[in-house]
Amino acid sequence: MPQYFPTVKKVQYEGPESKDPLAFRYYDADRVVGDKTMAEHLRFAVAYWHSFGGKGGDPFGPGTISFPWEKGRDAKTRARKKLDGAFEFMEKIGARFYCWHDYDLVEEGKTLAESEDRMQDAAKHAKELQKAKGIDLLWGTSNAFSNPRFMNGAATNPDFQVVAHAAAQVKTAIDTTVALGGHNYVFWGGREGYMSLLNTDLKREREHMAMFLTMARDYGRKNKFKGKFLIEPKPMEPTKHQYDYDSETVIGFLREFNLMDDFALNIEVNHATLAGHTFDHELQVAANAGVLGSIDANRGDYQNGWDTDQFPTDPTELLLAMRVILKNGGIGAGGINFDAKIRRNSTDREDLFYAHIGGMDAFARALINAHAMMEEGTLEDFVKQRYSSFDKGNGKKFEEGKLSLKQLANIGKKQGAFDLQSGRQEWAENVVSRWV
Amino acid sequence: MPQYFPTVKKVQYEGPESKDPLAFRYYDADRVVGDKTMAEHLRFAVAYWHSFGGKGGDPFGPGTISFPWEKGRDAKTRARKKLDGAFEFMEKIGARFYCWHDYDLVEEGKTLAESEDRMQDAAKHAKELQKAKGIDLLWGTSNAFSNPRFMNGAATNPDFQVVAHAAAQVKTAIDTTVALGGHNYVFWGGREGYMSLLNTDLKREREHMAMFLTMARDYGRKNKFKGKFLIEPKPMEPTKHQYDYDSETVIGFLREFNLMDDFALNIEVNHATLAGHTFDHELQVAANAGVLGSIDANRGDYQNGWDTDQFPTDPTELLLAMRVILKNGGIGAGGINFDAKIRRNSTDREDLFYAHIGGMDAFARALINAHAMMEEGTLEDFVKQRYSSFDKGNGKKFEEGKLSLKQLANIGKKQGAFDLQSGRQEWAENVVSRWV
Amino acid sequence: MPQYFPTVKKVQYEGPESKDPLAFRYYDADRVVGDKTMAEHLRFAVAYWHSFGGKGGDPFGPGTISFPWEKGRDAKTRARKKLDGAFEFMEKIGARFYCWHDYDLVEEGKTLAESEDRMQDAAKHAKELQKAKGIDLLWGTSNAFSNPRFMNGAATNPDFQVVAHAAAQVKTAIDTTVALGGHNYVFWGGREGYMSLLNTDLKREREHMAMFLTMARDYGRKNKFKGKFLIEPKPMEPTKHQYDYDSETVIGFLREFNLMDDFALNIEVNHATLAGHTFDHELQVAANAGVLGSIDANRGDYQNGWDTDQFPTDPTELLLAMRVILKNGGIGAGGINFDAKIRRNSTDREDLFYAHIGGMDAFARALINAHAMMEEGTLEDFVKQRYSSFDKGNGKKFEEGKLSLKQLANIGKKQGAFDLQSGRQEWAENVVSRWV
Amino acid sequence: MPQYFPTVKKVQYEGPESKDPLAFRYYDADRVVGDKTMAEHLRFAVAYWHSFGGKGGDPFGPGTISFPWEKGRDAKTRARKKLDGAFEFMEKIGARFYCWHDYDLVEEGKTLAESEDRMQDAAKHAKELQKAKGIDLLWGTSNAFSNPRFMNGAATNPDFQVVAHAAAQVKTAIDTTVALGGHNYVFWGGREGYMSLLNTDLKREREHMAMFLTMARDYGRKNKFKGKFLIEPKPMEPTKHQYDYDSETVIGFLREFNLMDDFALNIEVNHATLAGHTFDHELQVAANAGVLGSIDANRGDYQNGWDTDQFPTDPTELLLAMRVILKNGGIGAGGINFDAKIRRNSTDREDLFYAHIGGMDAFARALINAHAMMEEGTLEDFVKQRYSSFDKGNGKKFEEGKLSLKQLANIGKKQGAFDLQSGRQEWAENVVSRWV
Repeated sequence: MPQYFPTVKKVQYEGPESKDPLAFRYYDADRVVGDKTMAEHLRFAVAYWHSFGGKGGDPFGPGTISFPWEKGRDAKTRARKKLDGAFEFMEKIGARFYCWHDYDLVEEGKTLAESEDRMQDAAKHAKELQKAKGIDLLWGTSNAFSNPRFMNGAATNPDFQVVAHAAAQVKTAIDTTVALGGHNYVFWGGREGYMSLLNTDLKREREHMAMFLTMARDYGRKNKFKGKFLIEPKPMEPTKHQYDYDSETVIGFLREFNLMDDFALNIEVNHATLAGHTFDHELQVAANAGVLGSIDANRGDYQNGWDTDQFPTDPTELLLAMRVILKNGGIGAGGINFDAKIRRNSTDREDLFYAHIGGMDAFARALINAHAMMEEGTLEDFVKQRYSSFDKGNGKKFEEGKLSLKQLANIGKKQGAFDLQSGRQEWAENVVSRWV
Repeated sequence: MPQYFPTVKKVQYEGPESKDPLAFRYYDADRVVGDKTMAEHLRFAVAYWHSFGGKGGDPFGPGTISFPWEKGRDAKTRARKKLDGAFEFMEKIGARFYCWHDYDLVEEGKTLAESEDRMQDAAKHAKELQKAKGIDLLWGTSNAFSNPRFMNGAATNPDFQVVAHAAAQVKTAIDTTVALGGHNYVFWGGREGYMSLLNTDLKREREHMAMFLTMARDYGRKNKFKGKFLIEPKPMEPTKHQYDYDSETVIGFLREFNLMDDFALNIEVNHATLAGHTFDHELQVAANAGVLGSIDANRGDYQNGWDTDQFPTDPTELLLAMRVILKNGGIGAGGINFDAKIRRNSTDREDLFYAHIGGMDAFARALINAHAMMEEGTLEDFVKQRYSSFDKGNGKKFEEGKLSLKQLANIGKKQGAFDLQSGRQEWAENVVSRWV
Repeated sequence: MPQYFPTVKKVQYEGPESKDPLAFRYYDADRVVGDKTMAEHLRFAVAYWHSFGGKGGDPFGPGTISFPWEKGRDAKTRARKKLDGAFEFMEKIGARFYCWHDYDLVEEGKTLAESEDRMQDAAKHAKELQKAKGIDLLWGTSNAFSNPRFMNGAATNPDFQVVAHAAAQVKTAIDTTVALGGHNYVFWGGREGYMSLLNTDLKREREHMAMFLTMARDYGRKNKFKGKFLIEPKPMEPTKHQYDYDSETVIGFLREFNLMDDFALNIEVNHATLAGHTFDHELQVAANAGVLGSIDANRGDYQNGWDTDQFPTDPTELLLAMRVILKNGGIGAGGINFDAKIRRNSTDREDLFYAHIGGMDAFARALINAHAMMEEGTLEDFVKQRYSSFDKGNGKKFEEGKLSLKQLANIGKKQGAFDLQSGRQEWAENVVSRWV
Repeated sequence: MPQYFPTVKKVQYEGPESKDPLAFRYYDADRVVGDKTMAEHLRFAVAYWHSFGGKGGDPFGPGTISFPWEKGRDAKTRARKKLDGAFEFMEKIGARFYCWHDYDLVEEGKTLAESEDRMQDAAKHAKELQKAKGIDLLWGTSNAFSNPRFMNGAATNPDFQVVAHAAAQVKTAIDTTVALGGHNYVFWGGREGYMSLLNTDLKREREHMAMFLTMARDYGRKNKFKGKFLIEPKPMEPTKHQYDYDSETVIGFLREFNLMDDFALNIEVNHATLAGHTFDHELQVAANAGVLGSIDANRGDYQNGWDTDQFPTDPTELLLAMRVILKNGGIGAGGINFDAKIRRNSTDREDLFYAHIGGMDAFARALINAHAMMEEGTLEDFVKQRYSSFDKGNGKKFEEGKLSLKQLANIGKKQGAFDLQSGRQEWAENVVSRWV
C-alpha cells in the first residue's frame, strides 16, 4: 500500500518539554486519568470531510490543496484510495474513531442507485480497514445540503420530491452506518432553516423536520441501529436562520415531538459561540437534560462572525468544557470529533498533523487539569455551599414544591434583614487559572 | 390638577402630509382596518419606568432629566403626582393602556410592609384615574432585579432568603394587578441568569425558576387573575447569560414544566435582535406555538451590542411584524407596549411626545400596509403554492405520518429528475417594498 | 446575436403603482431631480463577477446556476459570448456602466501572456459593445486574491515572486481599463491582510502595499489614466483581518503615504456594517476628507456576521446615504455599482432582473426623497442652528485657533450657568420618517 | 491612620504552587526578566474610578458596594480619606502607579472654582502619600463626560459654552497632573462622538476636537508637562459612535492634525475587541507607528457586546500582548493600568484584592513566557525567513522603491512557476501553546 503521508511517522507522546512539532506533549493514550485512560475519555475522531476532502476553497477562491487519491481511475478506486489515506493518517495520529458524510466517503453518483452502489463498495473496504487498524466509526451522516437540489432544504424543502430524495440518501447512510458498526448517527441540519421568512412556512417546515426525524428513528430502530441519533445545533450558515439554533432550541424541539429518548446533541464549539453562548454553556444545558451526546471540536474566531472551524487551542475554553464532561460522567458513546479545518494557506502535508496534534494535546491537557481541579474540589465545594440554604428547612420545602406563594411570601415578610452574598467571581476565575 | 406637560395639547391625527411634529400622520384611533379599529388592533401602552421614571442615566453618567412629581413631600404624594402626570401624558398621546413594575408605581419602602402600603395607596388613585380616563392596565410586574439583594437573581438566587423576599414582592404585584383589572401579568427575568458558570448550579437555578413560576401561577389563578402570565425572552443584560434567552428557549422551558396553558410570551424587538433573530422570527415562533402574548415595542442599534431600547421607526421591520400579528388573528389580550426610552440627550419635555408619536405612527403605518399587502395576497399565495406538493398525494401522506422512511426512500428512488424551484427571494422583497 | 435573456424585454418605468415585477416603479432614467437626471445622479453599474460569473456556490455547496455562454468552444469565444450576454442584460435593465475584474472578463490563462492575450481580445469586443450600447466602464480591477498563489496576499505577500506576479496582472488590468476608457481603477485588497499575527510582519506588509499602490499610480499616470484609483475598505473576509478596515483606516493610510491626491474610496454598504459603522457614516467620513469616490451598493444581514452581499432594499439606509451624496455634490466620476448577488436559491433567469430592479428602484426612491428632504431643509437648518455658537464671538475665535486653553478656560469659568440643549434625536428621526 | 482594608495584609509572592488566594503566584516585583525587573516591565497602576469609586451600579440597578470614606464630613475630608484608602490598597497590592479623573479624586463642586479648590487640596495630600509610599501618578485625566452638561460631548459639543467649560476642567486636570509629577496625561473621548448623524456636523466636531487637543498640548508644553498626551481608542459606548474608534483611526487623526510628536495611544483590551480587533493587533498598530503609549488592562466578554471591563485572565491574549510590548522595547513611560471592575455581585472587601492579584499574576506570567518564547526565537525566526525574499535582489529593490510597475511586471512575467508557501498557522499556534 502506497504511503500517502510519507514524511510523517506515527506520532509519539514525548511529554510537555518536547519541542518536536510532530510529537504529543500531553496526549498519552494509555495514561490513566481517574478511572479511564485518556483514549477512553477523549475518543478522538477525525472528520473525513475536512481532513480528506477539504481543499481550502472559500467564497473568494478555489482550493489550494490537492490529495493524491483524487487521481484514481474511477470513483470506486478513488474512494478506496481515499480510505487508505485516511486510515494511514488516523493510525499515525492515533485517532481511534472517524466520522463521515455519505458523499465524503464516495463521490455522489448520477443516480441514487449509483451512489448506493459506491457506498456499499466503500463500506466493504472501510470495514476491513477498521478491523485491521482498530479504528471505529463514531458516526455517519448524510450530506443533504451541498447538492443544488437541497438549496431550499432537505427534510424541510417546500418541494416534496426533495424530501423523498433526502429520505433515500438517509436510508442508505443509516444502512451503511449500521454495516460499519457506527456508534451514532448524526443529523446536521445543513439547510434546514430559512433564508427569508417572506417565502417560508415556518410551522410546516418544522413539522416536516420532526416527521422526517421520527421516520428515520423508526427505520433505524427497526434495522438494529442501537446508537444515539445526534442533532447538531447551529444558529446560522449556510442558511440565514437554522432551525437547530442552539441546545435549548433543539431540546425544546425534541421534547415537543417526543424524540428525547432516541436523540441526543452533538455540540460544536464554533456553533455555540455563533449562537451567543459559551461552549461549556451548551454542554451544560445538554448534560442537564440528559442529552449530551458528542462533541464537534473546533474553535471560532471571536472577531469574525462566521464558522471558521479552526482547530481548538484555547486552554480555558477546553478546561471548562472538560469540567462539564467529567461532571457528566464522560461523553458516553460519543466522542471528540475534530470538525475543524486547516487554514487555506496551510498547504504542507504536515500541516494536517500539526493541527490534529495541537487539538489533541489541548484536549488532553484540559482533561488532566479538569480532573485535578475537580479532585481538589475547591470550586465544587463553593458552589455546593452557595446553594446550601435549599438543602434544609424552608429552602428544601420550596424545592420540593411544598410551599405556596403565599406561604413563601410570608416567610419573606417575616425574615429579618440579611447580608449580600458575594458571588466571588474573580476568586473563582483565579482558582481556574491555577489549572490553565 | 396641575398640568405636567403644559406645552403640549392632545395629539391629533392630521394625515400623512402633516408637518406638525406634535400630530399623528398615520395613527387614527377609530379608523377601521379590516375588522377592527386601529386602537383595537394596536392597543398601545406606555411604559411607566422609561417614560415617567427614566432619567437618562447610563453607565458613564447620571440622569439628565428630572420630573416635576419628584418634588412631592412624601412617597405616597409623589406616587400620586406621578400617576397624575402619567395619565395626563397618556391621555394627550392617546394611549389606552399602561404597564408598570411595582417600584415604578411607588418608591420601594424600607420594609415589604411599607412598600405594600404604598402600592395599595397608589392603586387606589390609579383605579380612579383609569376609570376617569378610560385607560387600562395592560400588565403589571415586579422589579426583582434592581435592588442589590437581587444581584444574584430573584427566583434563581442561590440564597433562599432572597427567593422568599421576591415571593413577597410578586404576591403584592399580582394582587395589585388584579385590583387594577390588569389584562396580563409579566415576568421579565431581570437577573434570572448567570454571570459566571463557575459559581452557578444551572440545573438547580432553572428548576427553582420553574417552581417559582408555578407557585405564582397557582396563586394568581386562586385569586381570580384571569389573564395570561407573560415571560419576556432576553438573551443577555443585565446578566451575562439570561435563562429566558429567546422564544424557542422559553417555549421549551414552558413545555418542560407544564406551563404552556397559562403562560405566553412578551416579545421585544431589541431582545430578538440581541439574540440573533429578527423581530418577526420571534413573533412567528411564538405564534406557531400558540403563545404570542404581547409586544414590547422598541428597536436596537445594529451597530452596538447592547439593549439600546430606542423607539421603533423601521418601516420594514414593523410591516413584517404586523404581518405575523395579523396572520395570528391579532395580539389578543396583549398590546404594544413602548418599552423604549428617549436618548439621554433628549431633554426637552416635548421629546417624550415626539418619541411616542413616531412609534405609534410607525406601527399604524405598518398595520395599514400589512393589511393591504395581505388583502392583495401576492406573497401568501406564493407561499401556499410553494408548499402545495404536500397538499395531495404522497406529500400529503408524508405530512400525515403515513409513510415509512423506506417507502419514502423508494419514492425518492423512483421519481425521475426534477427541476430546481427558485425561492424568488428578491422578487418577494420587491413585493414587500411596495408596502414600505 | 442570440438572446441570452429571451423571457425579459427592456425594463420600463411604469410608476409607483405598477405591480409588474419587471417594471421600474421609481427609476425613470431621464427624470430630472434637482439639476441632473436620475441616470446622471445614480450612474448605475452592473458587477460582472456576481451577475455574469456568480453561480451560487457557498462554503457548503457548489453553484446552482449555469450561464449559457459557458458552453463556448474556447476561452476567447466564451469571453465574447459572456460580453454579449452581459451587454444584453445591461441594455435591458438600463444600466449605463459596468465593472469587472480581469478574470471575470476572461478565464485566467495558463500563463500571464495567455491571460493578457485573452484580455486584449475581450477588450476589443467590449469596446465595440460599449460604443454600440452607450455603456461605459465604471472601473476595472484585477483579481489578485482567488488564485491559490495569492493565498497569503498579493502586494502584501511574504514571497516577492507573488508580488511580481500581481504586478504583471495589475499592469494588464490598468492597460485594459485605459483602453476601454474606464472612469476609475479599483483596488479591493482581497487578501491584503493577515490570517494570523503569529506569522506576519504587519509593518513590512503594510509598507509593501503602499509601495505597490504608489508604483501602480505612477504607471497609470504615465500611461494616460486620468481617473481615480479607488480603494475599497473592508474589515474582514476573506482574511481574518484586512488592512483596508474602514474609511478612517484607509484615509490614514493614504495620508501617511502621500496618496490622497490620486486615490479615493469605494464604499460598500455591507463592509461598512461589518466594520461596526453605518453606510452613511462611512460615506460622510470619505466625503469630509474629499475622497468619496464611488459606491458598491448592496446590503448585509444584521443577524449574520459575514458579507452576504444582498441587493439593497432598505429605504432608510439608502435615504441617509443619498443625503450624504447630495450634500457632497454627487458621486462625481464614481457610480453605484451593484456588488450584490442573488441568493443561491434564486435560480430563475428572471431573478437577476428582479434583484437589479429592486436595487435601482430603492436608490431612485431614495434620491427623490433625499432631494425633497433637503429642499425642505428642516434637518439641515436644525443642524446649522445647533452649531451656531461657533459662527460668531468666542466660538468663532475657537474655531479659528485664536484662543489658548487658558483663555478658553477663563471663558468657561466666567460664563454663568447654561441650559442643556436637547439633541432632539427622536424629532429628527420623525422628520426622516416623512421621507421614507 | 484607620485601616480601610483590615482583613488583608500586604500581598506576598509565594510561587506557582501557592493556593493562598491572597498571594501572588507569578508576580515577583524584583525578579529580573531579561534586562529589567518585573515591576519595571509591568508598571502596574490602579484605576481610581473603578477601584475606589465604582459601586457596582449598572443600567438595571444601583450600586451594591459602599466605601468607608464616603462618610467623611465634607468633600475635602472625604477626598483625603479616599486617598488614604487608595494608598493603603495600592501599598498592600504592590502597585507602584495610579490613575485618576479629576472627579474621582474629588467630588465635583458646584462651581469650577470650588472643584479646583478641592483638587488642590487633594493634590497636596496625594503628594505626601505618593512620597511616603513610593507610588507615582501614571496619568491624570478629566471626566468631561459624566455631568449632564457633556451629554452632547465636551470638545465636540455643538454648544461652545460646553467646550469652554471643558477647557477649564482640562486645564485644572493638567495643572494637577503636573503638580503630582504625572508621567502622562490622558484623553478618553468619553462622549466625543455622535448618537445620531441626523443632528451632527461630523466634520466640524472632528475639527473642534483637533483644535482642543492642540490647545491642550500647547498649554501643557508651556507649563512644563514633559510626558505624553495619550488618546484612548474606543469604538462605541457611551456614544453610539466614538470618534477615537481604534488605533488606526486615532493615528490617522493625529497625523492629519500634526499631533504625532506629542500624543501616543493608550490601548484597552475591551475596546480593541469591541472594535473588531484583537488586543495584540491594536498594540502592534500603535507600536509600528511609534505611538504605543500605555495600556488599559482588562478583558471583554466575547458573548456580550458592551464594555464589560472584567479583570484580565486570558493567558494567550496576554502572552501575545506582552510579545508585542517586548518587541517594542517595553511600554516606556506608560504602564499597565487596571481599567477593570469587579462584578456587581462581588461585594466582599477581599474581592478587589482577588481581582487585582488575578490580573497582576496573569500579566506577570505572560511576561515570563513571552520573554522565554522570544529568547527561543522559533516564531521570530520563522517570520524573518518568511519575508527573506525582500532582503536581497529584486525583492530588496522593490522595498527600496527602485522598481517601476512595468519592471516589476516584467519580473513577474519572466519568473517560472513557483511553489505555494504554507503559512503554517497551526504549527505557529502549537509553538505558542508551549508558552501558555
